Order: sequence, then structure tokens, then C-alpha cells
Amino acid sequence: MTGRNGLRRVTYQHTIEYEVVNSHNLFDPRNQDLLSVGKIDHARRFVVVDANVENIFSVKIQNYFFQNQVEAKIITFPSGEEYKTVESYLSIAQELDSFPIHRKDEPIIAIGGGVLTDVVGFVAGSYRRGIPHISVPTTLMGYIDASIGIKTGINFNGSKNRLGMFAPPQKVLLDKSFLKSLPNRHILNGVCEIIKLALIKDAELFCMLEAHGAQSVVSQFQNDEGGAILDRAISGMLDELQPNLLEDDLARKMDFGHTFSYGLETRHKAYLFHGEAVLLDIAISAQIAMKRNLLSDAEADRIFNLIATLGIMMDTTILDPVLLWHSLQERTYHRNGEQRVPLPLGIGRCSFVNDVNADEIESAVKSLEDRIVIKHGII
Amino acid sequence: MTGRNGLRRVTYQHTIEYEVVNSHNLFDPRNQDLLSVGKIDHARRFVVVDANVENIFSVKIQNYFFQNQVEAKIITFPSGEEYKTVESYLSIAQELDSFPIHRKDEPIIAIGGGVLTDVVGFVAGSYRRGIPHISVPTTLMGYIDASIGIKTGINFNGSKNRLGMFAPPQKVLLDKSFLKSLPNRHILNGVCEIIKLALIKDAELFCMLEAHGAQSVVSQFQNDEGGAILDRAISGMLDELQPNLLEDDLARKMDFGHTFSYGLETRHKAYLFHGEAVLLDIAISAQIAMKRNLLSDAEADRIFNLIATLGIMMDTTILDPVLLWHSLQERTYHRNGEQRVPLPLGIGRCSFVNDVNADEIESAVKSLEDRIVIKHGII
Repeated sequence: MTGRNGLRRVTYQHTIEYEVVNSHNLFDPRNQDLLSVGKIDHARRFVVVDANVENIFSVKIQNYFFQNQVEAKIITFPSGEEYKTVESYLSIAQELDSFPIHRKDEPIIAIGGGVLTDVVGFVAGSYRRGIPHISVPTTLMGYIDASIGIKTGINFNGSKNRLGMFAPPQKVLLDKSFLKSLPNRHILNGVCEIIKLALIKDAELFCMLEAHGAQSVVSQFQNDEGGAILDRAISGMLDELQPNLLEDDLARKMDFGHTFSYGLETRHKAYLFHGEAVLLDIAISAQIAMKRNLLSDAEADRIFNLIATLGIMMDTTILDPVLLWHSLQERTYHRNGEQRVPLPLGIGRCSFVNDVNADEIESAVKSLEDRIVIKHGII
Repeated sequence: MTGRNGLRRVTYQHTIEYEVVNSHNLFDPRNQDLLSVGKIDHARRFVVVDANVENIFSVKIQNYFFQNQVEAKIITFPSGEEYKTVESYLSIAQELDSFPIHRKDEPIIAIGGGVLTDVVGFVAGSYRRGIPHISVPTTLMGYIDASIGIKTGINFNGSKNRLGMFAPPQKVLLDKSFLKSLPNRHILNGVCEIIKLALIKDAELFCMLEAHGAQSVVSQFQNDEGGAILDRAISGMLDELQPNLLEDDLARKMDFGHTFSYGLETRHKAYLFHGEAVLLDIAISAQIAMKRNLLSDAEADRIFNLIATLGIMMDTTILDPVLLWHSLQERTYHRNGEQRVPLPLGIGRCSFVNDVNADEIESAVKSLEDRIVIKHGII
């Protein structure tokens, strides 16, 4: 008993811990990284594979588990944001439930893009109130962003990631050779998140993108400079995530590019990629930052020159100021009643503001349209 | 970079903390306990109320928020295990989504039985990857068990609590005057969990039940002795939960009565209450313990005399040994490949065993049927 009304205070210290590991030839049966978590005697594994990965690696994956004498149930999951649904979540949970595994030592293995690892992570986090899982990102977006954090989720009721949870993987296995199979648009999708990270917190990474970004895009990041960019991006991302893993602090640099993009993605989910929406948000935010004298003309030029050099198109025709304003309002609920909009402070630093208004957004859209001469319809 | 392949190890220390607080006259507008978490200026609250509670307290609850100038959206949730479904979860999430609240300082309030607080807790834990919630248990089962822990969940694919998560409430408010409105069967439902707790870890509580249990049942626990039993039960429950809040240790005393009950509840969910299933499990476990000389004849007599004294009927006709065996196998997956069956070691202590077999279960059922003379159909 404590105090007048107080009966009991329950406290519990909990450590979240996971590894992000570079691995090569993941499906070579001699590589034990995929089996390095959980039991291996009489082992069973539930494996969810992206349809794109399945097309290319199906036989190798089956052979991997067969050679290692692991009874694996391998299911295929379609690619794309439109499958980030309640139905996908329930269908994976049902498949899992028909292949009973131990609660603690037979981790689910998710191999695919950010959508897949987000959905499978939510299944793992909520099946029997949480079973372990391993993530293997196969897209650049997953590789440098979605898979290395602990956020999972599905879209619901017309909103992105409205249901989900913080569900740390036990391990994230990075094999950049997966990137070789990606279409250029998917490479650029991930590059947008690297630009975000560089611009808001890492001037050196920005310089690396300026110097070696275009070549790395062409090389699908298989070149040494591309590898260095990826390592630095992941390192920077984890530096940001780790001290605030459960988002107790809602002023997050990593939310840069994620204020106006939310509404854009929701309206244009049929064809806009996440990174593309983020880049449009970055461009709008840069215009706002310029008008607030947080960013010089020369710095803004560097940003837009980098985007052009990397060959990324921006569809500015979809920048409806009303939509962007509503998106900011939605994010304000998410950020507990304050805007907390991250804006670039020069190249490589961040400033948070709470007073962006609708006129400012409209004016930023106009300036951006004037700046971007090349307009185009659906990318 | 760490080691050959190691890129990064992410670690994060997280403290789970919540209060279990006795409160009286919760709906008196002067009582600020319901509003003691979160912001109160321009406050909004999403409130989910059990249909039974709504029948009795609807006006009082509305008046409470009105008088305190809180904009509340109050929705009603039907009572009963059959509503612990994916559909209920999604429907509450949808209602919540149409009444946008801040992510951190406008907690959901759940007022009702264990089913309601389990479902609403899962919504709270997974909406925007987790928003705060407050639990107000109105049944004895919720009061001494379901609401004071951090387990949430829904039934799925024919299995109890197959989806869910550990989602700590920010506060649990206990007002035992709610128990006055409960039918006798609901009181006894909760009493079965108190018997479980007493038998497996608290001989003194067992004595209290022997001395004052029957009178407390009649008084709906409004008597002083009943209050003392509740306080001790809650205290004992929290003592067990707190050091193992996320169930890292799967040998849990609190799983006593929850090995064979799982299958019974799944098959007979239309009419069997959770506590009734738990008590049948306790009776079977006691028979097994006797045959293993963990429990003397005299101790077993005390258990069955207590059950009779409290006026609890056991429907032994549903004890299908094959079902019980399959239930144990299911729980073995849940306990990561070992049975970890808690059995009473005398009155008030616990022994874990891993070698219960099908013959032993069948023999225990027979002995129990011989012992329980009064048989009956649907309770």
C-alpha cells in the first residue's frame, strides 16, 4: 500500500536488443546467419518471402532449409503498398497458426521489402503476444530504413500505418547483393531516404551523394563508394533511432520528409512510392526553410542539383496545398498536438518549427513549381 | 562496426511503469482519478464501456465528463467472450480513428470486464503503434486478474488470445462497488482465479477463503473480509507478474489452472466461463498432484471442501481426456517446447513438471468424476 489511494506501482526494466549484421550469400547452405537465432535441432521455421524475391530465389531458399535440415514453411507475399492491409496481416497469421512453432526459439523469417517486413513484423509482434523474428530487407528502402528499425504496421481505415507496434527483430541481415535485382525506380525510392538523412543530419553523407551518388545509382550500390554511402546511412539512421527507440521524444529528425508526404501517399497510394512522396516533402520543406532564412539560396541549389544529378523526377503537379495542410494537421495529432516539423538548417543540421501555416505551404508549392521546370504526370 | 560481420548492435533500456489504485465513487465528478493521466485543458477522451456497465451507469458516466468539461466519445461494447474477436478490435479502432486524439496525452479509458479491457488494451497498444490507456475493471475476473496485468488480446482462428500484445495501462482504477451489480455466477468466476492463486502460492489466502470466502461471495465482496481477500489476491498476483512482466520465464505459477482449461474454453466457449474452466483444470491438476504425492489426501480434501463451501459447481461431464491432452500439447508450444505444468505442492506452493502423459490425464479425470458426486449439464 502506498499513499491514500495508491495500492501498487508496477515497474519493470526491459532491454530491447538486436543486431544489424552484414552478410553475404545468405542462401548458401554453409552460411548459418539465417539460422543463427533460435534452436537448430529439429528446427522449424516459418518464412515469408516477397513475390519478387520468390521469383528469383525460390529454389535457393528451399534448398537452403533442406540442406540445413530445417522444416520450413515458406509462404509468398505479394509486393506493394496496396497489400499492407488488415487482410494480409490476418492471412499471414492464419498460415502461421497452421504451422505451429515454439513461442521463443523458432523465429519467423521475413525476406522482402519494407511493406513485407512491416506486416510480418506486426504478425510476429502480436502472435501469442510476440514471437521472435528476423528481417532480411531486399529493397533499398528496407535496407537503409524500414527493416533496420523496430516499427511495424499496416494501413487501416484509409491511413498509413494506423495499426502496428514497436516490435524489434532479433536480427536484421543485410546483403546488398539483393539490390542488384531492383528496377531503377526502386533504387531511387531508397535514395530519397538517404537524401533525407544527409540533408537533416549528415553534411558529409550529402557530399558523398554529390560525389558518388549518380555512379552508385547506376551500379545499384554494388560499387565501393555505394557501399560506403549505405554503411554511413545505416549508421546515421541507427544513431538517430537508438536513443529514442520507442519515440518518447516526438521531435524526431527522422520525421523530416514525413510531414506532407503522409497526405500525398494516402491520396496517391496507387502509384506514388514512399521515397517519392518523401522527396516532394523535402522539396516543400526546403522552400519553407529558404523563406525562413534557415537555408541559403546556394544550399537550396545544392539540394535540387543533387536531385537532378541522381536522375530523380518529382511530380510537382500533385502538390495540392490543401492536402499538404491537412497532412500537417494529421501529423500534429501524431506528434501529440504540436507540429514539430523538422526543417533543414543549412545542409546537415535540423531545426524544429511549430508554426507552419497554410499560406506558407501554398507559397512553397508555387516556388517549387517555378523551380522545377520539368513537370510530368504519373512517374 | 563490430566484428567480422557485425555492423551494429542496438540496445535500449525501457521502463514499464503503471499504477494499480483503489478509488471510490469513480463517476463522482469531483473524483479526478479517471482524468489523472493525460492533459485536462481542452481534453478529449475516447471511452469504451461494457454494455452491462452502460445499462447501469450511462447517465453518470456522461455527466462525469460533461461536468469536467471533457469532450468524450463514449462507445458501448457488448459483454462476453464471443465478442473477443478481430471484428470487435477493428470496429473499436475505427471508432477511435474517427475521433482523433493526441498520441500521448489523451488516454483511452476502458470500463468493463476482462474481455473488454483485453480488446481495448490491444487497440490502445497498436493504434499508431501505441497510445496510453486506463483500465477500470467492473467484474471480479477483471478486478483481480485480467485488468491488473499487461496482457491484451483477441481470439483468432479458433484459439484464445492468439493475437495480442503486452500493452501496459498507464493506470488501473479499482472500485469494488462495481462488484455489487454482478450476478452470482460472475462473482464465482473471479473467485476461481483467487482459489488458483491461493492454492499455488499463498496458504494464508487459502485460509482466508476457507474462513470468509462463502460470506464474501454472498456479500459480493463488500464486507471487510472480502476486501482483505481481494487486496491480498491482487497483491499476490502483482508479486508474481512484476518480476516476469514480459514472460521471459515461461515457468509461471500463474499458469496454474491454465493448461487444460485452454482446450475446454476453446471447445465450450458458448457457455463456459474462464474461471469455470480454470477450476476444472485446478481439479484435474490436484488429482495429478495427489497421484504424484505432491498433495496429500487431506490437502486435496481441503481444496474440494473449499470449492463446495463457496458453492461452485463443476461440470465434470465435459472433461474429455483427449481434449485435455491436446490442450496440454498446445500449451507446450506456447511454453516453448516444454510442458512446464504448475502443480500444487501441498497448499500454497508450486512444483513444475514436464512429463504429464495422456494416461495420467485419463486417470485424473476418472478420479475426479468419482470424487464429484453432483454432476450436471450446462451450468
